[in-house]
This record gives sequence, structure tokens and C-alpha cells, in this order.
Amino acid sequence: MSIPHRVLSLLRDNGPLSRAELPDRLEVPRPRLLAELDRMVAAGRVLEAGPAASRGGRRSTLVRLDPGLRFAAVDLGASSVEMEITDGSLTTVAALSEEMDLLAGPVAVLDRIGELLRTLRDKGHYERLDALGIGLPGPVSFREGVPVSPPIMAGWNRFPVRDTLARAHGCPVVVDNDVNVMAIGEKYAGAARTVDHLLFVKIGSGIGSGVQVHGRIYRGAEGCAGDIGHVQVDAGGPVCACGNSGCLEAYFGGAALARDATAAALAGRSEQLAVRLREQGALTALDVGACAAAGDAASVGLIREGGRRVGQVLATVVSFMNPSMIVIGGGLAGLGHVLLAEIRSVVYKRSLPLATGNLPIVMSALGPRAGVVGAALLASDACYGAGE
Amino acid sequence: MSIPHRVLSLLRDNGPLSRAELPDRLEVPRPRLLAELDRMVAAGRVLEAGPAASRGGRRSTLVRLDPGLRFAAVDLGASSVEMEITDGSLTTVAALSEEMDLLAGPVAVLDRIGELLRTLRDKGHYERLDALGIGLPGPVSFREGVPVSPPIMAGWNRFPVRDTLARAHGCPVVVDNDVNVMAIGEKYAGAARTVDHLLFVKIGSGIGSGVQVHGRIYRGAEGCAGDIGHVQVDAGGPVCACGNSGCLEAYFGGAALARDATAAALAGRSEQLAVRLREQGALTALDVGACAAAGDAASVGLIREGGRRVGQVLATVVSFMNPSMIVIGGGLAGLGHVLLAEIRSVVYKRSLPLATGNLPIVMSALGPRAGVVGAALLASDACYGAGE
Repeated sequence: MSIPHRVLSLLRDNGPLSRAELPDRLEVPRPRLLAELDRMVAAGRVLEAGPAASRGGRRSTLVRLDPGLRFAAVDLGASSVEMEITDGSLTTVAALSEEMDLLAGPVAVLDRIGELLRTLRDKGHYERLDALGIGLPGPVSFREGVPVSPPIMAGWNRFPVRDTLARAHGCPVVVDNDVNVMAIGEKYAGAARTVDHLLFVKIGSGIGSGVQVHGRIYRGAEGCAGDIGHVQVDAGGPVCACGNSGCLEAYFGGAALARDATAAALAGRSEQLAVRLREQGALTALDVGACAAAGDAASVGLIREGGRRVGQVLATVVSFMNPSMIVIGGGLAGLGHVLLAEIRSVVYKRSLPLATGNLPIVMSALGPRAGVVGAALLASDACYGAGE
Repeated sequence: MSIPHRVLSLLRDNGPLSRAELPDRLEVPRPRLLAELDRMVAAGRVLEAGPAASRGGRRSTLVRLDPGLRFAAVDLGASSVEMEITDGSLTTVAALSEEMDLLAGPVAVLDRIGELLRTLRDKGHYERLDALGIGLPGPVSFREGVPVSPPIMAGWNRFPVRDTLARAHGCPVVVDNDVNVMAIGEKYAGAARTVDHLLFVKIGSGIGSGVQVHGRIYRGAEGCAGDIGHVQVDAGGPVCACGNSGCLEAYFGGAALARDATAAALAGRSEQLAVRLREQGALTALDVGACAAAGDAASVGLIREGGRRVGQVLATVVSFMNPSMIVIGGGLAGLGHVLLAEIRSVVYKRSLPLATGNLPIVMSALGPRAGVVGAALLASDACYGAGE
């Protein structure tokens, strides 16, 4: 990292610091650091703002990030978008979310994201964006900033998402896979702050994982590392949207759970699910969670069975990767303790004892915000490291 | 890497170079490099040996590794040891192998390794060792140089292998897991030279894998990354030596293959295997390979079935890791094309298309030497980087 990048990251993560402290904290010779600071003040990245608390002797000046810095963080899901505007320290300035249909295609979706951003600008949440980070629900070439053969994003293959957004908003843009972005968020400000080798598992409409090795995202040869949703858990299992049969996602995840809950309701195996089906006309994973919480045995059974399948795949991954921690996130993480207990039970029983002896398996601490926190961090790194 | 480490590695990998070339090759200022070179000559690491080929102008001096440098490379298997003495460029000076019973315990085994090394010294293959690298068939704490809960090495848990060997031979010692060492060898001088993300799969008595990420071994949180032998491929499968049931190793690998071949011979399903069983009193995986090569359908069937199980586990690992290449090594890699074809067929069919589109699956190029080549490289790095 360049010296400006290190100064800006330190101020982002620690808050304001005195001019006198900075050379020690960064182990950079004092004259060189002070010259860089002057350049950063002139560029509008940092402010010198009043005297720092005295450490004895002459009072030093406090250095802080320019309060006008603004990042946009976008987490695009299968059917919705979450967005935040943050300041330079990644504190939320404004947030919004809305339903969004990816199948409308990249032009329409990115236009709509632009409209939403302009709404936030018109409300005074920013004047100009310093960088934008976005997570997409599919494989992404991080280097090129484009989705690559994304299964649930018909029409998006190799669309220049990064360059389109950069042109539209006049700032650096970073594009990554949504699960990677959530893993980055959880490592930066969630459950995995001190973790070297993180396995972040997203259980939402689909199932995927984000892998960090030595604290950095591992993307694999083609950028699709972490795909666990299409691991075959049973050769004779149901047909999956991907065309194979018996994939993990064909058994569990939002879509599979809604399907199985509907079947349970229609077969008379759950009075609670049947009532909801009559009232609403359709069931979602949320209904299963609510009924399970209310003691419905069939719903608890569905969650337990799904957790067992997820645990079965994770047991293999844990033996292979030997992670320092597993964090479970995504929409279905809200199914709570029954799901977590089942996953833990299978992984602890089936993986190599050496790999599970010190392995915490925990729920995401950031919940639905994991994606936007990660996207904001990616944006800030793109901004602070620009020109390196 | 320090400048001496970079100079020595460059001479190891490229052979002798002229004094004039070195500063450019390493992008180090000329005066600084020449001063380091003088120190390395004085320390007996490199020699200046005659004039280099003229590049026009004044002739430069040729710089080469000291021809007296010697490394010991040891590959300790479940039932045998392979050993090489190499020079500073990792060229083999002497090699030997013998049967060895790990269950004799670490003191007896390391003593015997010492005796074998002294035999090689007495024959004039070295005067003193500059470093020693050793691979052990079990999980290893690389940092501490000790085996950790190794399943097939009763009595070795946390025995100070590195420190014991360093004291006995008066040189730096590096200890690693045998499959990691084979992966390192294959990356340095085998099939995977240009590969970033390597999955090396060893199929021998047991089954394991070595993982390289960005060209470096990935060990995981507890040093046991790559364990694929105890992944459950069928909950109702045979009981494994580890105590669980249906592990990959319980289905395939040297021990399982010998068991299934014996059953086939006794049940009258293979005349060729039955003849060998009568003649030898017992069957090994080598018999299955020989009978398969001679057209025995039952033997081909056993190899194909084993390859299918290995492929099943690798399909999951490939989707998760998205490696750049898979290299198959170990004793059973000699089963050849039938095994490779079956593994390829399952992986290409079951893994994410994006992960397999550019994925070569090949046999080890170094064969049984992969381990000693990797151990020699580890030794040379320990020697050349000493003091960093």
C-alpha cells in the first residue's frame, strides 16, 4: 500500500489521529509523512481540524478524513437491492432498499440504481461520489468488472457493469460477487474481524460461500471459487435449476423451502402452513421460519433436514479447507437456532477432528447489512488506493 | 526475500550467470548487489568461476553456486522412505530407498534415517549438510516442525522431528506433510510449473491432497487443509480406520483395493486375481493394476469404481476451490489411464462448468520423485533464506 492509502485506511478504521501520532503508527519517517499529508489536504482527502489532546509538550493538530467523502454501496440480490451512502469512515449517511427484477436486464437495472442514487443526492446525502462498490448474485471477473455466465442473471453475461457505472457516476467502481462482498463485510466489521481463514456461507434464495485466505478473498482460477450450491448431495435427488440433479440448492434455500412447505401444507402435514397457504395463496421460506418459531413440527423438520444437507456439504469443505471460522448469513440465516444447531451437529461429527477442534460456527453479526458493509469497504479501498 | 536469498534462488533455478547480468535480472542497484556477492563468496555460498561469454566490451565473471552445497531430501511414507542428496541446484547426487515401519516410533525411525544419511556421507556424497527437508504422512504443524495427531503414526504426536533432526545433522530442517511436499515438487519441476492454484491429489495407501493458492502451499487454520480421504461418500459405507463410516479411503486407496481384490478373487469373479492370490498368499493394489493392464474385467471394474468415488469428492472440491490444474500422484497413480479417465469423467460432468472449462486433470510428471524434489526445494529455501 502507498503511504496515502495507509493514512486514509488508518483514519477510516481508527477515527481522527494527531499529526504527531501518524509517523509512529505507520512507521514512516516524519518528514516524508508530513509532506504526503500536505498533499492529501490539498487534494481534499483529509482535513486538519483543531488541536489534538495534549501528550505533553507542544499541542499537535488533529487529522481526520474530509467529512465530505462519500461512497455508494450496492448489494444486488436475486429480487431486491440494498443501498447505502456512507462517509469516508463507512458510517451510514443514508440507506434504502427496494424490490428489483434482475431479468429486466443490466441496462434497466443499472439505470434504476442510478435513479435511486440521484434521489439520495437530491435529498442532500452527497454532492459527488468518491467511489462505488457493488455485489452481484453470480460469478464475477473481479479484474474486468463483469459478470461471467451468471446462472440467475439472464442477459448479464459479460455486461460491462463496472465501466457503465463508472461513466454514469464519474467515480471508481468495484464489482464483486455478492457472497464475497458479504464475507468482506463480516471480516471488516462483523463476526470474523480477527479471522485469517474465513468460510462465509450465504443461505438465501440460493446457497453460496465466500472464502478468505490469509484475510483476503480467494477467487480461484476463473473467479467462481466458493460455489457450494451445486454440489451433488444425492445422485437420485430433485432436478436443479442448473440442469444437474440432487444439487444442494435443489434441496434447500429459499426456493426449495417454499416448494417443500407448499407440499407439506397440501398433504395435510402442517395445519399452520395450510392456513397460511389459504390466506396468502403462496408460501415462502419466511412462513416456514414463522411456523417453526410457533412450534410447527413439520416446519422444524424442513429446516432441520435442510441444515443437515448444508452440513453434509460443509463437512467436506471444512476437511478440505480447514477454516478458522464459519459464518452463516443470507436471508435464511434468520431461520435461527434450529438451522445452526443442525449444521453444527453434522460438521462437528463428520469433519476431521483436527479441523473442528477450534472451529466456531456462528451466525452473521451484520445480518442483511453484510453486503453493503463489504461493498462500502471495497469502494473505500478503490478510492484510497487510487493511483497506486 | 533478502538479496542473498534472491541471488541463490536465481542461480539454483537458472544455473550460472555473469556478474554483469545479475543486477538487471534482480532489479537491484549494481553496487549494492556486488557488495552482497562479495559477502556470499566469503561465506562459501557462491563461487566466481572464470569469464562469462562476452556480451561485447569487457568480459564479466561467471557466478555459480558453490559446488559443495548439499541438501538432504527425505520422503517418509506409510511403509517406506525415499531419500536424495542434492547439490545446490537440486540436482540428484545420490538416492536410496528402503522399507520402513513408522510404528517403530520416531526415535527409531529418525535414528535409522540418520544411519542412512551417514552411509551416503561415508561414500563421499557429502561432507556436511547445508539443510534437510522431510515430508511426513500426516498433519504437521509447519511452524513448530512437529506432527499433530497423525492417524497412521502412532507415537509420533507432537514429537520434535525438526529439532531432533537439526541437532543430529547440524543444519536447518524443514518438516511438512508429505502431500504438501509432493505438491511443492510438482509445482517446482513437474506438471504444474506455471500454475497459480494447484490441487495435487495423492492416491496411495490413503488419499490426500495438497493445495497451492497463488503458488504457495495453503495449510489452513490447524495445518490440516487438503484432507479429502475422510470425506463421507456414502453414509452406509464400510467402516474406515478413522472410526467413521463411508469415508473415501474406506472405498479406495491401496488398502481398500487390496481388500476388494481379495474378495473378488475368493468369490470367483476374477481368474487372474485368484491365480495371484494362490501364488502370493495376498494381493496388493499393484496386482490389481497388473491384472487390469492384462485385460481382467474385475480389476478394471475396481479401478473404475474407485476413480468414480475419487471423482465424486473432487467434483465438490473443484466447485469450491476452482483450481487452475489438478495433478494426480501417489503410488496408485500408476493404475494409469482407466483411473484418470474415470476421475475426469465425473469431475467434468459434476462440477460447475465455469470451474472445469479450462481445468486440466493430469498425472504427476515426477511420479515417485515428487516428494523428494519438494523436500529438496524446502531445504534449499531454508538454507538460502536463513537469517532473513
